Amino acid sequence: MTKHFENQIESLKKKILHLTAMVEQSLTEAVRSVRDRDIALADKVIAADESIDEFEVEVEEDCLKTLALYQPVASDLRFIIAVLKINNDIERIGDLAVNIAQRAKSLVTLKSEDNPFELPEMSELTLAMVKKSIDALIKMDAGLAREVGTMDDRIDDMHKNAYRTAESEISKSPKLVGYYINLLGISRYLERIADHATNIAEDVVYLVEGNIIRHQIVE
Amino acid sequence: MTKHFENQIESLKKKILHLTAMVEQSLTEAVRSVRDRDIALADKVIAADESIDEFEVEVEEDCLKTLALYQPVASDLRFIIAVLKINNDIERIGDLAVNIAQRAKSLVTLKSEDNPFELPEMSELTLAMVKKSIDALIKMDAGLAREVGTMDDRIDDMHKNAYRTAESEISKSPKLVGYYINLLGISRYLERIADHATNIAEDVVYLVEGNIIRHQIVE
Repeated sequence: MTKHFENQIESLKKKILHLTAMVEQSLTEAVRSVRDRDIALADKVIAADESIDEFEVEVEEDCLKTLALYQPVASDLRFIIAVLKINNDIERIGDLAVNIAQRAKSLVTLKSEDNPFELPEMSELTLAMVKKSIDALIKMDAGLAREVGTMDDRIDDMHKNAYRTAESEISKSPKLVGYYINLLGISRYLERIADHATNIAEDVVYLVEGNIIRHQIVE
Repeated sequence: MTKHFENQIESLKKKILHLTAMVEQSLTEAVRSVRDRDIALADKVIAADESIDEFEVEVEEDCLKTLALYQPVASDLRFIIAVLKINNDIERIGDLAVNIAQRAKSLVTLKSEDNPFELPEMSELTLAMVKKSIDALIKMDAGLAREVGTMDDRIDDMHKNAYRTAESEISKSPKLVGYYINLLGISRYLERIADHATNIAEDVVYLVEGNIIRHQIVE
């Protein structure tokens, strides 16, 4: 690996970390906008998506330039391809943060003031999964990546609980159907974000170990 | 472009078409399993996912080998990268077909026999979007790809209608909450499949025109 190529890899890692930080902020603020019924914060998350999209395109262009310029093979090639795919997943997590912010805005017009699901725990765990999966990529640590799969099982359980709670609460108070369906939507967006983190983690394990473990962590 | 590389591109196109055909079949059968409350068919869709996953990995490996062996640049490089990303989207459409099949199994235990949403129209349109986006890739036709974005707007409207129908029906008959939430889940999976088709179409426009139109078709 030449010095130039090494620098290029370092620069890509930094950019992926930067994109992740942008998306983490959006996600944190989206969840807070739900909790506080804060329309201004939700609007901020929605507006921030443009910069995230632009940065994703920049990272992809960097990957293409690196491929064209250095023609990497073997593990170097795999690394660039993994970054390309992971870049895509992170951007989609950003889209889901926007979806959560949009739900926050709908919730403002709806009745209940409480948050009956485990949404704070669920969003904390989801954020931790995103961080850990990217951390695993930067450190090329398959062990760290595998932990993400275990965390995903807990997210799935939490989402199933939310579903059951919504079902029983709506049966009791049908007037709250809009409220619960919106809240359930947020739970589902978090579950999808956790899925993207799991995809990232699978790509990292594949990258580090070269085995096809993809499609085996999550079922 | 050397003859060998040309053959490699042709082989990749054939494989992407094959993967798409597998996923189209799963999606068609998943939707039919919902309509007919057919558990055996739903189980078939769930079982077929393993072959889809394996084939996705094979296409990705082919892309990596092509990159390592032919070191393509410019538009050839972009094509391989687009195939890599699109391959990923198709596989995720397969996952969503499995999700629909799982919902079909839940619906069997639930009460109502009718399908109150526009699910047949929605699934037909979604399938047409998947076909058209891949057709656009094979033909390198940006015009065709752009049509997918317009179709996606109709899917979004249909999903919003499903949501409103569910809300008003549950208010009227709270006992049917489980039934409607499951049906709404199917509508949402179809909407996500349509999103993946739109992502594919955006990648094709980007590939053909070289402009950054991504993140501009869909908002």
